[in-house]
Amino acid sequence: MKLRHHTVHSQHRHFGWDRALPPALTVAPGDTIEVDVVDGGGGQITPDSTAADIAALDYSRLLPLFGPIAIDGAKPGDALKITILGLKSAGWGWSGVIPGFGLLEDEFREPQLAIWRFDPSGKVPALFGKHARVPLKPFPGTIGLAPNEPGPVTALPPRRVGGNLDTRDIAEGAVLRLPVEVAGGLLSIGDTHAAQGDGELAGSAIEAPMSVALKVELERDARIPAPWIETAGPVTRHLDGAGYHIASGIADDLMEAARAAVRSMIELLGRRHGLAPVEAYMLCSVCADLRISQLVNKPTWGVSLYFPRIVFE
Amino acid sequence: MKLRHHTVHSQHRHFGWDRALPPALTVAPGDTIEVDVVDGGGGQITPDSTAADIAALDYSRLLPLFGPIAIDGAKPGDALKITILGLKSAGWGWSGVIPGFGLLEDEFREPQLAIWRFDPSGKVPALFGKHARVPLKPFPGTIGLAPNEPGPVTALPPRRVGGNLDTRDIAEGAVLRLPVEVAGGLLSIGDTHAAQGDGELAGSAIEAPMSVALKVELERDARIPAPWIETAGPVTRHLDGAGYHIASGIADDLMEAARAAVRSMIELLGRRHGLAPVEAYMLCSVCADLRISQLVNKPTWGVSLYFPRIVFE
Repeated sequence: MKLRHHTVHSQHRHFGWDRALPPALTVAPGDTIEVDVVDGGGGQITPDSTAADIAALDYSRLLPLFGPIAIDGAKPGDALKITILGLKSAGWGWSGVIPGFGLLEDEFREPQLAIWRFDPSGKVPALFGKHARVPLKPFPGTIGLAPNEPGPVTALPPRRVGGNLDTRDIAEGAVLRLPVEVAGGLLSIGDTHAAQGDGELAGSAIEAPMSVALKVELERDARIPAPWIETAGPVTRHLDGAGYHIASGIADDLMEAARAAVRSMIELLGRRHGLAPVEAYMLCSVCADLRISQLVNKPTWGVSLYFPRIVFE
Repeated sequence: MKLRHHTVHSQHRHFGWDRALPPALTVAPGDTIEVDVVDGGGGQITPDSTAADIAALDYSRLLPLFGPIAIDGAKPGDALKITILGLKSAGWGWSGVIPGFGLLEDEFREPQLAIWRFDPSGKVPALFGKHARVPLKPFPGTIGLAPNEPGPVTALPPRRVGGNLDTRDIAEGAVLRLPVEVAGGLLSIGDTHAAQGDGELAGSAIEAPMSVALKVELERDARIPAPWIETAGPVTRHLDGAGYHIASGIADDLMEAARAAVRSMIELLGRRHGLAPVEAYMLCSVCADLRISQLVNKPTWGVSLYFPRIVFE
């Protein structure tokens, strides 16, 4: 059989996961697909937008998904193996503080918007404010299959079948395996990000429309418990060259420890680089990583926020 | 004033943090110190030990601290700036499953012990089982100041003044700042690790006796909120060369998401590399990293466990 290349256009848009949706496209294992993805704002933010457009966001139009793509012969119990071949952006994106979203949503309540412009290759760091230059690494924030439950169900949270994983390293060259729960699998993609820190702590990354090229294959009866990802090589070399500032957050709850680490880093970035708190918060969301340092020394845990110093070099 | 070099010997051992302890040593800002650290097991495990010695551990002798070191002139509100100059190991260490410790303590209840032997330079990966080779990166798991509260208080959990941070990147070349809460600061160190994954998920790292060389300086009235760390360069290049296996854990609680990620990785390592579950669990504790992929997409969060593929290459 000849392998084929397909395109999913941006009009193949749906909201929420739904096993009952008819596929936009049916492909064979081994085929490649290009998916045109509108950003997670659903096109409501443009390069000319201001914070007022964040305040006016229609939340029901957030997180559109593109697909679904049926994979011929996929059955429950199989794994869908997806190789990320590449991503192409339109050269712009946005980050925001969206009321009701974000780790510190009670402290940062005012709508905020930053528009980013960058080289579409993704190889050149993007400027934030006057001095910060954020290395890019484009990836689809949302990539998943239809869960085997009555739909539609919200696309916001991640699920065992994938979805809004927001896992930064599902980038070019990575191989993602997802557990198939319904016939055909029903793959959809959305929420493309030009850059994101682990945690996506302020609730948005660099949200950017993008086309995503991928290859799909089937592994019969693989029965994997949840998403598995393989990266072909190092994952942070675009960020790590100048080392890190690390802020420790310590609390008897991991979420509180993460909050403490973020507040401490906001203080550090204000002192060292003159950033206003909300600027530091938005910047951390696109380039700083939340790591769990320890979660075994009862009764308090440590979460560390790693900020890449190359951003200010 | 001439800068001096001091040594804290292993008999300067204390248990728990206590602002009332007399200093083992008083140093001036700018001085360097070498601290001889007995491992976190307090010397109860030797290169000839077996799992029976884990079962017989006297928990009251775990986590000895070495110090305290008073820094002349340190006052509450100052920051103690500590530069990690280097670490020297004795060329062996241990990892265990200790009943009552570890992220999956309810699933792994039997005492286990692995003895590691390695090149004291720390530059050569250490063999685990027949095939796994773990790159080393020595660091002090515990480094902190006396908290301003009545002591002694347990050294097990980390605190705002540092302590059992188990933060892997407080390694050679790193600069750690800790908030001083009592006159003199009262610095103590312990729990040296030859290697540890972020999270220390099974409850132990490669626990190894080691001497730690450091330099102390004071920053007056710095009023930092919690530990701040600066690394001079990249932090994972000893691990990342061959990429990662990543297992996604998804749950409505970060701790449960971390547990799911670990269970999924144990399954993966069993299938791909033939490891028994307890071997995979112990191996992840010394080399795999728990990262928070997202904690903003209500109501479920994603924690990802990153296993460095170089271990099996």
